[in-house]
Amino acid sequence: MQSTAFFSARHLPSAAPPVRVRAVFTNPSTATDGNNSMAASSGPKWAQKTITLPPQRRGCHLVTSKIMKEIGPDLSEFKCGLAHLFLHHTSASLTINENYDSDVRSDTETFLNKIVPEGRSAPWTHTLEGPDDMPAHIKSSMFGCSLTIPITNGKLNMGTWQGIWLCEHRDSPTPRTVVITLNGI
Amino acid sequence: MQSTAFFSARHLPSAAPPVRVRAVFTNPSTATDGNNSMAASSGPKWAQKTITLPPQRRGCHLVTSKIMKEIGPDLSEFKCGLAHLFLHHTSASLTINENYDSDVRSDTETFLNKIVPEGRSAPWTHTLEGPDDMPAHIKSSMFGCSLTIPITNGKLNMGTWQGIWLCEHRDSPTPRTVVITLNGI
Amino acid sequence: MQSTAFFSARHLPSAAPPVRVRAVFTNPSTATDGNNSMAASSGPKWAQKTITLPPQRRGCHLVTSKIMKEIGPDLSEFKCGLAHLFLHHTSASLTINENYDSDVRSDTETFLNKIVPEGRSAPWTHTLEGPDDMPAHIKSSMFGCSLTIPITNGKLNMGTWQGIWLCEHRDSPTPRTVVITLNGI
Repeated sequence: MQSTAFFSARHLPSAAPPVRVRAVFTNPSTATDGNNSMAASSGPKWAQKTITLPPQRRGCHLVTSKIMKEIGPDLSEFKCGLAHLFLHHTSASLTINENYDSDVRSDTETFLNKIVPEGRSAPWTHTLEGPDDMPAHIKSSMFGCSLTIPITNGKLNMGTWQGIWLCEHRDSPTPRTVVITLNGI
Repeated sequence: MQSTAFFSARHLPSAAPPVRVRAVFTNPSTATDGNNSMAASSGPKWAQKTITLPPQRRGCHLVTSKIMKEIGPDLSEFKCGLAHLFLHHTSASLTINENYDSDVRSDTETFLNKIVPEGRSAPWTHTLEGPDDMPAHIKSSMFGCSLTIPITNGKLNMGTWQGIWLCEHRDSPTPRTVVITLNGI
Repeated sequence: MQSTAFFSARHLPSAAPPVRVRAVFTNPSTATDGNNSMAASSGPKWAQKTITLPPQRRGCHLVTSKIMKEIGPDLSEFKCGLAHLFLHHTSASLTINENYDSDVRSDTETFLNKIVPEGRSAPWTHTLEGPDDMPAHIKSSMFGCSLTIPITNGKLNMGTWQGIWLCEHRDSPTPRTVVITLNGI
């Protein structure tokens, strides 16, 4: 007991600066009620999981619920943190966009096909893997292959209309691997 | 005292590997002078804050100073870390680009309007929310809705000419919500 | 001894929730064999390093090996974490794309030049720094200036065909500065 009480006592002065912004700060020293093991329990945590998204036809797909099914229970362990999603592929992409009207997703696919030429009209040298491959690589770099989303009180902290999209840029559907890393307290 | 001294003693061997790369590593065990409460004070901290950026007209806007006014004092608590900015919207975007000549921002808006057709010439199915809505969604995925910026010695570690831009893609200005998460030591 | 044993004992109950997802969780309390100093050794670590990539001609360049030469030894200290790369410039970009056929990189450069007009045909107002400057700024925001990549067992956890590209958008090659931040356990 003595030692624990003493250790807690030593914490307080060091926690002073964060306390100045207590409203926004949460850290092992400010998050604790002064009980040492509580401080330990609210210490930084890391979670990492590799999931596979099922094959999807070429186009943009809302996958928020598929992702949540995989990480929901893990997310609930975090009061404050960040969720990082990393797609293991160079011919698909991850982006955040509207979660309601599916027309937004089909119009986005229309746009991507409009600005990245494919087939005869295309100037590509890399054609060995099919006419849709080089355009897929370009679209992947345009939207990117990773997302970082804030975690607040055990949930992804996104806007009302935001959802996670997997954009499949190849013609033939294939399973897509995503490494998900959670970090927080 | 005994317990604290003993606890510190237990730390030292465990800190050995990081010490090999002491120049670049900073962590609770290497950052401490061996004093337990100091180690606690330099332990990982998390801060999360939701801010509102005022309505801006359609176009690209430099918001670095607005962001700094909100997080400056919090940033000063971090020697090393990452700042994550997450926009809660699908018709605006956050990007990092030139912080000096406003022509760079207006030319970027010119580019976005040039490659994303709007109005009669546009092939969009999603038109219910106005002719500027579907183009806004596409532009949002092109530039993205989040940024991660390194923190070094209490400041955002950006290049001399880099600034944070909020790109408003809708015609009617609205306040925009940004969740800012700081993590570091 | 008493105090340390007692401190460990206090840890166990607090670690209970993470243990529920032990398979994916790794954190100071679950990663330990119950030995306090082990827990300390697997505690969160931060590393931050500023590197310079050598001048490259305009175009897309695979720089994975150059980056690994700089951070390989540091990475090996992390069982689980995230690597963040931040380019200090607004006329170049970082992206992840195919690491094998160099045609993919030259075709991507062809695409960028195709959709961002340059010279007489270009509508830009910002021309003081040369005809390639404004297009370079736009391309930088299209692909972005930063990357976040998962770290697993001391290595960057990328897909088989993924590599890190530095895209140089200016005509005259210049050294490019990248701030690399590693965070994990």
